[in-house]
Amino acid sequence: MEKLLIGITQGDTNSVNFEIIFKAFSDPTLFELCTPVLYANPRLVTYHRKACNATINFSTIRSISEAREDRLNVMVCDDEEVPVELGQGTEVSGRQAKLALDAALRDCLAGELHALVAMPLNEHVIPSFPGLSQYLWKSTTANSSKEVNITLSGSLRVALLTSHLPLSQVASGITKEAIVTTVTALQQSLRRDFGVTEPRVAVLSLNPHAGDGGEIGTEEQHIIIPAIQEVSEHSVHAYGPYAVDEFFAKNLYSHFDAVLAMYHDQVMAAAQTLSNEVGTMYVGGLPFVFTTPKHGLQYALAGKNESDPAPLLQALYAAIDISRSREFYDESHASPLGKLYYERREDDRRSTRTNDRPAGERTQKDSPE
Amino acid sequence: MEKLLIGITQGDTNSVNFEIIFKAFSDPTLFELCTPVLYANPRLVTYHRKACNATINFSTIRSISEAREDRLNVMVCDDEEVPVELGQGTEVSGRQAKLALDAALRDCLAGELHALVAMPLNEHVIPSFPGLSQYLWKSTTANSSKEVNITLSGSLRVALLTSHLPLSQVASGITKEAIVTTVTALQQSLRRDFGVTEPRVAVLSLNPHAGDGGEIGTEEQHIIIPAIQEVSEHSVHAYGPYAVDEFFAKNLYSHFDAVLAMYHDQVMAAAQTLSNEVGTMYVGGLPFVFTTPKHGLQYALAGKNESDPAPLLQALYAAIDISRSREFYDESHASPLGKLYYERREDDRRSTRTNDRPAGERTQKDSPE
Repeated sequence: MEKLLIGITQGDTNSVNFEIIFKAFSDPTLFELCTPVLYANPRLVTYHRKACNATINFSTIRSISEAREDRLNVMVCDDEEVPVELGQGTEVSGRQAKLALDAALRDCLAGELHALVAMPLNEHVIPSFPGLSQYLWKSTTANSSKEVNITLSGSLRVALLTSHLPLSQVASGITKEAIVTTVTALQQSLRRDFGVTEPRVAVLSLNPHAGDGGEIGTEEQHIIIPAIQEVSEHSVHAYGPYAVDEFFAKNLYSHFDAVLAMYHDQVMAAAQTLSNEVGTMYVGGLPFVFTTPKHGLQYALAGKNESDPAPLLQALYAAIDISRSREFYDESHASPLGKLYYERREDDRRSTRTNDRPAGERTQKDSPE
Repeated sequence: MEKLLIGITQGDTNSVNFEIIFKAFSDPTLFELCTPVLYANPRLVTYHRKACNATINFSTIRSISEAREDRLNVMVCDDEEVPVELGQGTEVSGRQAKLALDAALRDCLAGELHALVAMPLNEHVIPSFPGLSQYLWKSTTANSSKEVNITLSGSLRVALLTSHLPLSQVASGITKEAIVTTVTALQQSLRRDFGVTEPRVAVLSLNPHAGDGGEIGTEEQHIIIPAIQEVSEHSVHAYGPYAVDEFFAKNLYSHFDAVLAMYHDQVMAAAQTLSNEVGTMYVGGLPFVFTTPKHGLQYALAGKNESDPAPLLQALYAAIDISRSREFYDESHASPLGKLYYERREDDRRSTRTNDRPAGERTQKDSPE
């Protein structure tokens, strides 16, 4: 197998990001799995390397063709001398993060990278930045019907129907259409990105105790159950709605390939508690593989050498696994024999939806390269 | 120490309740800690004992004075021959559960029991039943300023500001007054019922990421933070608001004696995942000690001998511990020297609130016997 070229964006320079990157790549076995290209300002790399007493070597490159195996390549996104102000987001740290992200995006869209891993950035110091996944979906030819964020945390895969929404707006954000779209996108991602042939998706309830038969809210009866029924008619294996406390207390999650939660705080604490890790976010629906570690900026730890490289390592492993899974999926579904089988099965399902392009065309279009 | 007399109500007869009771009391060491009085229809006890192949002996009694140590006493609440229909709530199972609860309540209020443990009942088959804790608060001379439900799960103590409320109504149910009342009730319960001298209470946020400085909802700024400030001025150690995912991912809970969550699904899954147990609910604000195991009715397991007695054992241990803690607290605060010290400290704090009864009167009134 060809070694994968993985882009990594520096994110916010005033946080623990560089320290984590140096720690992760201090293990030489990582270079056996991938050739990393760090999108950064090399002056910042040098600054942080000295500040961290890191011994890692890197090569500065200005195009992917210059990338060398078995070492950290730093793609020059800017080489201005900029101040580092550990522990806070600044206009400068926002601009540097954005420059790195945009340069990496350009190379991803040109098909020069197999996958991209973004270190956390501070969206408050980047003017008119709608959040990472929204920005990616807007900046690329994302397939909006496949847009889904999946948090990978231990053996759990968790998607959210609503994410950073005030709690008072959550209930009105729950629609049958949104559930159908997200469950379907999730199922397609589980197949292509995670290699699950017949994915089973658990859908959580909106109300406590799954609404207790309508006694505690009616969204289960009027929205969630009809949505599950609708996707089930299109060969999507979705089950629920489950009360979240029972779902975790009785280990029901172990029967499913992914969970769709109605809102952020319903599931994130339990998922992280279960896996004992902060997790990785995978952004689906993009024309390339994209993950980001969920450790956050950790400004309070900046410069203290207390950061944990595990979240970045997990994000890198996830990006590699997903890239390999996609490769395998696209290859097996592109061969004439496979295609025929695929077309027949897929057409049955697809004919009931709006899209009736032949499966071959779709496979090519969705292929990352 | 005097052995404690603990009442246990049978709850729903068509569930796993009797099986769990027999399993729990098959261990004779339990009789060293307490003298159990099971409020039940003895015909149902006999029926289930045969159905479970249990060998436990019991004595039928008609008043607490007849209760014998070192064995299970069954207080006759009814002796009608009634049908058992395993796996479903019925009018009969509802009526039997209510008869047992009311009989036990009567003895609690007469000061004949040290504590009461209620097995789960099906509130849907009891006419106009407002839920267990509401029913208890309404039926007793509960001190409404101290009403608080605390879920005990592993080392966590969790109180909810809103409980069985549709999610769409949660945000409007969050008021500063409710937070102040509940945190204060929680603090008082931690002192008297759990023996924590200077309790520290963590308050969770309503919105994801604690509102992210107002970007995701404003209840933190306008309601929760002012409430925390207000109680802090009255010597209640409350902290927050914390985002729930961070609270669990970073083990922040280990710094606190209790957690106040804004709503049910925000915290219950994580708490149960962390402790790996369903937990016990303690109902505070009653003139007696009351706990109930949270294992639910488990109708699907009824008659299968697969139930787990651990939740009942935990509820019994909790009832015993809380009774002992109250005893110790009331005793130490009733002694002249203790009272003087208590009055001075309490008066300082209480004078800024509406209640200015002398502390001695309050201590007596709150005493369970």
